[in-house]
Amino acid sequence: MQKVILYDTTLRDGSQMEGISLTVNDKLRIAEKLDDLGIDYIEGGWPGSNPKDMEFFKKAKKLKLKHSKITAFGSTRRPHISPAKDANVKALLKAGSSVITIFGKSWDLHVREILKTSLDENLKMIKDTVSYLKSKKKKVFFDAEHFFDGYRHNPDYALSTILTAQEAGAEAVILCDTNGGMLTNDLERVVMEVRPRVKVSYGIHCHNDSEMAVANSVAAVMAGCDHVQGTINGYGERCGNANLCSIIPALKVKLGITSISDNKLKELTEVSHYVAEVCNMKQFDTQPFVGLSAFAHKGGVHVNAVLKRTESYEHMEPQIVGNRRRILVSELSGKSTLLTKAEDLNLGLKKDSPHTKKILKLLQDLEYEGYHFEAAEASFELLLKRHMKKFKKFFELEGFRVINEKDDKGNLYSEATIKVKVKGKVKHTGCEGDGPVNALDGAIRKALVGFYPKLADMHLSDFKVRVLDEKAGTAAKVRVLIQSQDKEKSWWTIGVSENIIEACWQALVDSVEYKLLKG
Amino acid sequence: MQKVILYDTTLRDGSQMEGISLTVNDKLRIAEKLDDLGIDYIEGGWPGSNPKDMEFFKKAKKLKLKHSKITAFGSTRRPHISPAKDANVKALLKAGSSVITIFGKSWDLHVREILKTSLDENLKMIKDTVSYLKSKKKKVFFDAEHFFDGYRHNPDYALSTILTAQEAGAEAVILCDTNGGMLTNDLERVVMEVRPRVKVSYGIHCHNDSEMAVANSVAAVMAGCDHVQGTINGYGERCGNANLCSIIPALKVKLGITSISDNKLKELTEVSHYVAEVCNMKQFDTQPFVGLSAFAHKGGVHVNAVLKRTESYEHMEPQIVGNRRRILVSELSGKSTLLTKAEDLNLGLKKDSPHTKKILKLLQDLEYEGYHFEAAEASFELLLKRHMKKFKKFFELEGFRVINEKDDKGNLYSEATIKVKVKGKVKHTGCEGDGPVNALDGAIRKALVGFYPKLADMHLSDFKVRVLDEKAGTAAKVRVLIQSQDKEKSWWTIGVSENIIEACWQALVDSVEYKLLKG
Repeated sequence: MQKVILYDTTLRDGSQMEGISLTVNDKLRIAEKLDDLGIDYIEGGWPGSNPKDMEFFKKAKKLKLKHSKITAFGSTRRPHISPAKDANVKALLKAGSSVITIFGKSWDLHVREILKTSLDENLKMIKDTVSYLKSKKKKVFFDAEHFFDGYRHNPDYALSTILTAQEAGAEAVILCDTNGGMLTNDLERVVMEVRPRVKVSYGIHCHNDSEMAVANSVAAVMAGCDHVQGTINGYGERCGNANLCSIIPALKVKLGITSISDNKLKELTEVSHYVAEVCNMKQFDTQPFVGLSAFAHKGGVHVNAVLKRTESYEHMEPQIVGNRRRILVSELSGKSTLLTKAEDLNLGLKKDSPHTKKILKLLQDLEYEGYHFEAAEASFELLLKRHMKKFKKFFELEGFRVINEKDDKGNLYSEATIKVKVKGKVKHTGCEGDGPVNALDGAIRKALVGFYPKLADMHLSDFKVRVLDEKAGTAAKVRVLIQSQDKEKSWWTIGVSENIIEACWQALVDSVEYKLLKG
Repeated sequence: MQKVILYDTTLRDGSQMEGISLTVNDKLRIAEKLDDLGIDYIEGGWPGSNPKDMEFFKKAKKLKLKHSKITAFGSTRRPHISPAKDANVKALLKAGSSVITIFGKSWDLHVREILKTSLDENLKMIKDTVSYLKSKKKKVFFDAEHFFDGYRHNPDYALSTILTAQEAGAEAVILCDTNGGMLTNDLERVVMEVRPRVKVSYGIHCHNDSEMAVANSVAAVMAGCDHVQGTINGYGERCGNANLCSIIPALKVKLGITSISDNKLKELTEVSHYVAEVCNMKQFDTQPFVGLSAFAHKGGVHVNAVLKRTESYEHMEPQIVGNRRRILVSELSGKSTLLTKAEDLNLGLKKDSPHTKKILKLLQDLEYEGYHFEAAEASFELLLKRHMKKFKKFFELEGFRVINEKDDKGNLYSEATIKVKVKGKVKHTGCEGDGPVNALDGAIRKALVGFYPKLADMHLSDFKVRVLDEKAGTAAKVRVLIQSQDKEKSWWTIGVSENIIEACWQALVDSVEYKLLKG
C-alpha cells in the first residue's frame, strides 16, 4: 500500500486568507492538533518576515509533539550575497527547526522581472542556500515556486532549478502551482514528465484559483508524487490552498493510499471544526467529506433510497472521516424520517405510539407556519425532548422590552430590558447593543450567565434571516436561523414570527437551552 | 474553436441545497438572469414532484427569453405501466416545455434494489419514455443517473442504458456522477471509452462530494463531452453540483472553448452575486474566479510582484469575468459600469467629470460597507440623482422610536412613533404593527400620505434580509432589500446597518422617495 507524506501549511499559507488572523497562541494550539492528527510536517511560518512567526518558533520548541516536525519557511538568499550574510537565511537558522523549506524561482519571467537578476545567478542562489543550510545539518525541502508556469515557458530552465536543489542536497523538491491556474490534465502530464529526473522526495503544492486544487493534488500523487502540501479546510490566500481535509480521505478511500491512520481519519471532521473555530471562521456546511451537509439527504427519492442501501446515494461511509449521515426533516418528511431522527437521539419513539402521532401533527403544523427544521436540528431535538418531557425548563420569561430610536442627527440607540425567573429567583437586566437583536442577546446572557456559567463558552457564529410570505411586505413572517458554537460543536436553532424580534428571541432561547442541555 | 452547450440546474438541483428555499418568483428572476447570461438550457424543476414547480412552468411561459430554453425534469415511467398513464410523465407534458430531461437508472444495483425491477424492464422504461415523449414532439435529454458507479460494476449494462435512450431518439445523453465520488482520472477514462458509441450530444453532470466537480467537468469536456450541466455558485445537495461560475471561465481562458460570449463572461461576477442574493446565500469570498478574494493580494511579496507584472501572481485577468484586483485604486471596470448605468438614466455623466470621480468613490465606499446596488437599482438611481441634485428631499426626519414588548403570557406588542418635517410642516404620528418594521412602515406612510396621496397606490411586495459578517452574531451588519410595486412597475431598494431597524428604515425611505420621484 502506497504512502504519502503530509505537509501542512495552515499556519503560513493558510493564515494569508482574508479574515484569518492568528495569534501565536492560536498557532500553537493548531500545531498540537495537527500533531495529534498525524501530520508529518507543520510549516510554522516565515521567521524572516515578521516577529510573530519568530516567537512561534521559540515557543514551539516547548511543545511535546508525538509525530510532527515543525518546519520554517523562507526564500533563497538574495542575489550576489553570501547565504551566511542574508538576513532571511539567518532568521531561518535562528528559528531553530530541524527542517527548513526554502522557495526559489522556477519561472524565468520572475527571475528577470521580479528578482531582476540573471538566470544563472538564480541557480547559484538555490545551490548556495541549500548547501549552506545542509552544512548547518538541516533537512532542506525546496519549493519550486511557479514551477508549472515556468515549465510551460521554459521547461529546461524550470527543470534546472529543481535539479540544482537536488544536487545541492535538498531532501525533497516540491512543484508549486503558485497561481492556481493549472488544469488537472496539464499538471498531471508535467508531474509525469519530470518524475524520472527526481531522485529525492517528490512533492506537490496547489492553489485553488481554478477550483481544482484537490483534484490536482490527487492526480499528482497518482502521477508519482509522494509528498503533498496543503491546509486544513483549504485556507489560503485568494481562493485558498489544496484542502487536506479532502485530499487525505480521497487518497485513502478511493485509492488505498495511506497517510494518517484509520483511527485518526475518524477525527478529521472534528479537526476541521476545531481549526475553523481557532481561526474564527465558519466551517462551510457544504465542505466535502467533513461539512455538516456532506452526507445530508433532502430529496424524497434520495431519502428512500439511502434508507434502503446507503451506497445508493453516498460515495463513502461518513463514519470513515467521523462525519454522519443526516436525514433532513423538511416539507416532504414523513413518519419514517421522524422515527429515524428520534432513533439517532435515543428517544425510544415507537412507530405507533401516541407521542409519535402528536409530534408528527405538531411538526406538520409548525412547518406549515414556516419552521424549517432541516436547517435547525438543535431546535428539532429540543422540540422532541420538550414534548417528551425529557428536560425541565432552565428559566422562565417574565417579559422583555426592546427600544430603538433615531434622532434628527441620525444617531441610533438600542436598548433591551429583560425579566426572567431562574431557580426561583427573578433577575431583571438591561443591555444596550448594536441594534435591537444584539441588545436582546446581550440582555438574556447577562440575566443567565450567573446561574449557568458555561454559557460563557458559547458564542453565535452565524445568523440568517429569511422573509417567508414576501408579498405581505413588512408584515411578512420572518424565519430567523442562528448558529452557535463552542469548542466542540456547532448547532442551528430557529424562530418564526411576523415580529422579527420575537423570531430572534425564539432562536436565541433555543440556542441557550441546547447549550445547557448538552453541557 | 470548440463550443460547449451549457445546461443549468440551479432551479432544480441547486435548490436542493440545505438552506435554499426558492419561491416561484425567485425562480422566475433567476431564469431571466440566466437567459440574459446566455445559458442554453435552464432546468426549471420537476413538475411531477411538487405543485410549486408546476406553477413555475406555467408562469415561465410568459417570460420573454432571448436565448435559453426552459426544460422540465423527471424520471422514466414506473415499471410495468404505459408512459401515457404514468403520473410523472403526464406532469412532464403538462409543464409544456419544448425540452424534457428524463433520468433513468444506469447502475444495476439501483435497478434491482431501489426500483426492484428487472434489468430488462429498466431498459424498456427508458425506451418507452423517450419514444413517447418524442412522439409528442419534445426534444429529449437522457440523464444516466449513477452512470460511473454503474459502469464500474457492470459496464455493458450501463452502456446499454444510454444506447437505448439514443436509439429511442434522445438528442443528448448525459453521464452523471450522481454520488460525486469520481476521481478525475477515472472519470476521464470512462468518458473517453464511451465516446465512440455516442452519436448524439454528449453531456456530463458532476457533484462535488470529492471536491473535484469542476476539474471533472473540464476533464470530461477535454475527453469529448460537448454539453455540461451545473449550477451557479455550485449550489446543490450535500456538497453541491459542478460550479458553472468556474467551469465557464476555465474552459474559455485555459482552453479557448467557448460557451457564453466574451461580453457576457464579463457579467459572470455580477450574476454570481445576483443568484446568491436571490437564494439568500452569502457568496463565498474565496469562490474561484468570481469571489471577492479571488484576485485579492495580501502577502507583501505578492503585492509587489503583482504591481510589477500582473501575471506574476494571477492566473488570469480578473476583468475577463467582471471581477477585480483588490489592491489597485483606480477601477476602470467600475467606472465603465457606472457610465453605462448613468447613460441608461440619461444623466449625462461624462467620463472625466468631477461628479463621476466623486460618485465612483462614494460607490466604492458604500460597497465596502456592504451595499449591493446590482440588486437594488432604485436605490442606485436615487443615489446618482441625489448626488447630482436632480431632486429635492421630499421630507426630513426629526426622529423615530420603535418599542417592542413581550409579557409573561407571551403577548407581543410593537409600536412606532415618528416625527417628520414635510413642506415646512411637522407631522408626528404613531402606529402599531406586526413587529417593529411593520409598525415603522405604517408610521412613515401615515405621516406622509396626507402630503403625497399617490403613496396610497404602492405597496411592498418583497422583503429580504441578509446577514453580512455572520461571525459577528447578533452584532452583525444586515442588508435589507425591499421590493415595492404599484400598478405599472416594481422596484428594489436597499439599506445596510448593524441595526436591522435602521437598515429597514433606509430601504423604506428609498422605496417611498422612488415612488414620489417616478409618480
